[in-house]
Amino acid sequence: MTESTGKVYLVGAGPGDMDYLTVKAYKLLAEAAVLIYDALVDVQLLELAPDNCLKVCVGKRGGLPSTPQEEINELLIKYCQEGKFVIRLKSGDPFIFGRCTLEIQALRAAGCDFEVIPGLSSALAAPILAGIPLTDAVMSKCFAVLSAHQPDNLDWEALARLDTLVILMGGQHLSEIIHQLIKYGKNKFTAVAIIRLAGTPEQQVWTGTLSTIVEQVSNVRLSPAVITIGEVVRLRGF
Amino acid sequence: MTESTGKVYLVGAGPGDMDYLTVKAYKLLAEAAVLIYDALVDVQLLELAPDNCLKVCVGKRGGLPSTPQEEINELLIKYCQEGKFVIRLKSGDPFIFGRCTLEIQALRAAGCDFEVIPGLSSALAAPILAGIPLTDAVMSKCFAVLSAHQPDNLDWEALARLDTLVILMGGQHLSEIIHQLIKYGKNKFTAVAIIRLAGTPEQQVWTGTLSTIVEQVSNVRLSPAVITIGEVVRLRGF
Repeated sequence: MTESTGKVYLVGAGPGDMDYLTVKAYKLLAEAAVLIYDALVDVQLLELAPDNCLKVCVGKRGGLPSTPQEEINELLIKYCQEGKFVIRLKSGDPFIFGRCTLEIQALRAAGCDFEVIPGLSSALAAPILAGIPLTDAVMSKCFAVLSAHQPDNLDWEALARLDTLVILMGGQHLSEIIHQLIKYGKNKFTAVAIIRLAGTPEQQVWTGTLSTIVEQVSNVRLSPAVITIGEVVRLRGF
Repeated sequence: MTESTGKVYLVGAGPGDMDYLTVKAYKLLAEAAVLIYDALVDVQLLELAPDNCLKVCVGKRGGLPSTPQEEINELLIKYCQEGKFVIRLKSGDPFIFGRCTLEIQALRAAGCDFEVIPGLSSALAAPILAGIPLTDAVMSKCFAVLSAHQPDNLDWEALARLDTLVILMGGQHLSEIIHQLIKYGKNKFTAVAIIRLAGTPEQQVWTGTLSTIVEQVSNVRLSPAVITIGEVVRLRGF
């Protein structure tokens, strides 16, 4: 077996807009021979790659079947072993809910060179772009980031005691999340913000409290949305 | 009073290296008329500003007195009211331990236009650049970010129950942090990584467990360093 001269860059695309790419990701995209991307990645980012770059969408969206992980791994290894400059572009940051581990394991096992390039995670960029600081000397000495697509798997008793929570994939479970937090002692007047399509011209933000927010967004499709819970939400319009 | 035509951009510089700036921050720096920056900001970033840009360091470092916050606020307002394009450059992200709130309050009170541009927080970039994913479908459904320069002010009982912790400014209190976590039930074999100067050519990483790490770094100056605690640390070399 000859050694591969290719390389795979696992790159964070940030929240969507090109402005929030890192300089490094921007430069790498301009050199890509193969670009393997998720459906959540904004199309304007694909245009940064050269005209002759091979672009492969492996994401899932709108109920359509996604490419099996095994197949994505095989694509990365194949093009790397052909000596190609491969970019695996993932929305947000590859190491924050980016499911990068299986791809790295496969690349290592195949002896492929790779590098992870951090990106702005939507978990943080969404509240920040909505004007909400995640820390504050008085109100928020700590914040936690979690995904709530399976709320039963989380330790709500511990989470209820933290100053600030940033919750991804919680839109469908908003009532359950609030129920758990109040059950474990969170004040029902704690401030909440829900941010949809952060960092895009279509960004929308709703603010309320644990006791009002469910009704406020009852007619809204909250996917994808980021929920921020904590008194720091009140700093938004201070 | 005439309305100001200037604008202040509160910009996150990321962990230091220019590669981890956002494209937006990069473009804004090239247009800056006034650049007001903290000492932790890398000098290479200052060179992105035009030659005729006025550069003012307001940071503290090495025991020297820092510019009082009131004075920083006055500088921002003064240049903005002169109609200047002002950049307030902060290491990491302005809204994550960036102490941005007082500056925003002052700008609002003075009627100055401003915008916050997120950056890659070192809290997240450090573990990620060291190869540690902060989330994992099994090992880490949640992570918390905290500053431990005053460890007494934190709820260690709740923190000990979370999968993954990222701790800033904890270098001087490492023993105390570990004592608190073990006291509240954290397994003493939980993996720990300490990352110093993340994202720079001088980056150093120590890995161990809650029971070994203090001795491992006993002769090292851990400021600035980022501590990551949780089983995800083991994914680093998988």
